[in-house]
Amino acid sequence: MQINPDRFLADLHKLRSFGAAGVGKGVVRPAYSDADVAARDWLADQMRDAGLRVEMDRMGNLFGLADGPSLLMGSHSDSQPEGGWLDGALGVIAALEVARAAAEAGGPAISVVSFQDEEGRFGVTTGSAVWGGHLDQAAADALTDHAGVTLGDARQAVAHLVTGEVSPDLFTGFVELHIEQGPTLDTSGEQIGVVTDIVGIRDMKITFDGQQNHAGTTPMHLRRDAFQAVSAFNAALNDRLRNVVTPQTVWTIGHVTLHPNASSIVPGRAVFSMQWRDADADRLGRMEQIIRDTATEIAAQQGLAVSFGTMLGLEPVAMDPTLRTALEAGAEEVAPGNWRKMPSGALHDATNVSRKMPVAMLFVPSIGGLSHTFEEDTSEADLVAGVQVLARAVTRLGSVT
Amino acid sequence: MQINPDRFLADLHKLRSFGAAGVGKGVVRPAYSDADVAARDWLADQMRDAGLRVEMDRMGNLFGLADGPSLLMGSHSDSQPEGGWLDGALGVIAALEVARAAAEAGGPAISVVSFQDEEGRFGVTTGSAVWGGHLDQAAADALTDHAGVTLGDARQAVAHLVTGEVSPDLFTGFVELHIEQGPTLDTSGEQIGVVTDIVGIRDMKITFDGQQNHAGTTPMHLRRDAFQAVSAFNAALNDRLRNVVTPQTVWTIGHVTLHPNASSIVPGRAVFSMQWRDADADRLGRMEQIIRDTATEIAAQQGLAVSFGTMLGLEPVAMDPTLRTALEAGAEEVAPGNWRKMPSGALHDATNVSRKMPVAMLFVPSIGGLSHTFEEDTSEADLVAGVQVLARAVTRLGSVT
Repeated sequence: MQINPDRFLADLHKLRSFGAAGVGKGVVRPAYSDADVAARDWLADQMRDAGLRVEMDRMGNLFGLADGPSLLMGSHSDSQPEGGWLDGALGVIAALEVARAAAEAGGPAISVVSFQDEEGRFGVTTGSAVWGGHLDQAAADALTDHAGVTLGDARQAVAHLVTGEVSPDLFTGFVELHIEQGPTLDTSGEQIGVVTDIVGIRDMKITFDGQQNHAGTTPMHLRRDAFQAVSAFNAALNDRLRNVVTPQTVWTIGHVTLHPNASSIVPGRAVFSMQWRDADADRLGRMEQIIRDTATEIAAQQGLAVSFGTMLGLEPVAMDPTLRTALEAGAEEVAPGNWRKMPSGALHDATNVSRKMPVAMLFVPSIGGLSHTFEEDTSEADLVAGVQVLARAVTRLGSVT
Repeated sequence: MQINPDRFLADLHKLRSFGAAGVGKGVVRPAYSDADVAARDWLADQMRDAGLRVEMDRMGNLFGLADGPSLLMGSHSDSQPEGGWLDGALGVIAALEVARAAAEAGGPAISVVSFQDEEGRFGVTTGSAVWGGHLDQAAADALTDHAGVTLGDARQAVAHLVTGEVSPDLFTGFVELHIEQGPTLDTSGEQIGVVTDIVGIRDMKITFDGQQNHAGTTPMHLRRDAFQAVSAFNAALNDRLRNVVTPQTVWTIGHVTLHPNASSIVPGRAVFSMQWRDADADRLGRMEQIIRDTATEIAAQQGLAVSFGTMLGLEPVAMDPTLRTALEAGAEEVAPGNWRKMPSGALHDATNVSRKMPVAMLFVPSIGGLSHTFEEDTSEADLVAGVQVLARAVTRLGSVT
């Protein structure tokens, strides 16, 4: 089959016009926002034009279905609160282009998907988690974002587009092209990364409740300051994890809310996010125990209460050998000697989809290793190379599926 | 003169109906909010009924003026984002009651004031700072709250009530009754505190700028995480201040904003409030140097940039001997042997007013030492005792002014 690089790049740039941040190529297109809904509406039109049957489930996962059994390709079109133009969008538009090229070539049958809330406004890859059976709809609907909005309320924004549920049984496998979102390929100068496995993730809100009081008249020794508890927890945790982690392990406090968050008031409450990732499920569990023990000890020392929110998480996942072999062959044809096998440090929808079918992933470089920021970018030559590898791989798979 | 406890308490309870939080007696009445404007409108009516001439300046400071030279009494009627019903309100309603009782008694001449934004939505005691000449109007108008609203825009909410500027030269002195907002009187069981001096305060926003990035693919050793910088700064500062401070010194990080504040993103920016208070101006200066040096060192160690906002602050102030002696005499008459002399750990409008005239302050107990919270309260017996002391003191002063 022949992919059309100009058509592919034009659609990729068109998609970033939905929720354009006005800063570089950045986008602000969180799940269920007006920009996200408008983008899904536009994607549905492109799917129809490609001869695909458009379906959207209650979560807002958007499918373009080929006839009969098909290979599913895609990613997500929602973005971080401050997102790049390629994170998710690349995989969706690349799948659309491969589906078009395959239809023009008379096969194989390629279906396209854009999953919803991969970026976790409400949880962790929420749309594919529900579709993959990892999370039930009622539990998902009860999740809240940092503003206290429930997913159940937020998803009403796509209610007018919903056609019904889409069975995973329609598909023979799932392939997702994504930017690396890290520095490995950009540093090595390689053009393609074939993913071996995706690391597991844990994400939990932690709350310290102390005593809100006047910042001028409350002696230091009588304070139960929730910010001081978060700071002490963070320092102790960094020390205690040293003996458990590897150089690939990461942990992050990315969200902190103090209450009432005023300069003249000793904060009575702090709610913060604790997220950690590793390729080893046992290590993720050992880290969880250290996190819970440390928060509990700090709370006791400083006279505060601590509570732990629901722990969202996904297990590490190995890629399917057959799909992965096809991607490796395609990579060697498109970028001879200039690609590598590598793990994915980022979480992807493929993790959830793996519960239902064989999955594989392909990476292209992220300039400077930057992602989840307006600065995120990849050279157009590398973007096109990624789509070319997908085309070679699905042609090869077409003969086996 | 005879003060009327029922009339005083009825008005005090009426005032808390403006912005009532629905939690205990708490109020939500920040400067220039609808509730604050409605409360000032109501206060103006009470001042007129007391035979006072009502004036409001551009900042929204509300005055009820007696004829000729007069003693000014009052406090503020704006509240913290989550405030108690007495913080400021007590001093305003007590002044109103004393002005009424004095008018009924044929003197002395008592004027009443409710200053604006004492709680520092925009700065530190902003309304009295402008009136006292500590801050010029243009500089005040440029101040922003945590939501980015400028004071210049916010004060348009009272524009319809503004009559013009009020000269401090009209007044012979200023007396402010306030709740202690600390545990001292409540713990000792004493009913009255006569303030000896008000501690000085410094308040400054500090910003760390690092690199926003993906929380899954950015190795720990390559991160420039703004939250980690705040946490390390806080820990280092707590250690370094130990050798400089006294048991009365306090310092607080009460406001923290991470950017973009999402659990899957390494925070690229942190803006936080640093506030410190002490009765010794030299110590405040030494603390400032340690704060600036520590933030600069942490930023350099972790590869971030640091910037310091405008430093708002007020110097420690000693109370006027004549006014203070009158309050001490009144306290001994109303609560024989059951009052004390004490410093004020909290900042008050009296600090700014002291640049223009002699000032003094009186405290009543705060139950549990709590303030800047909905739980703030004082027994009605203590509230009335405070007004009785004011009445005795102004009668005594009436014969000298």
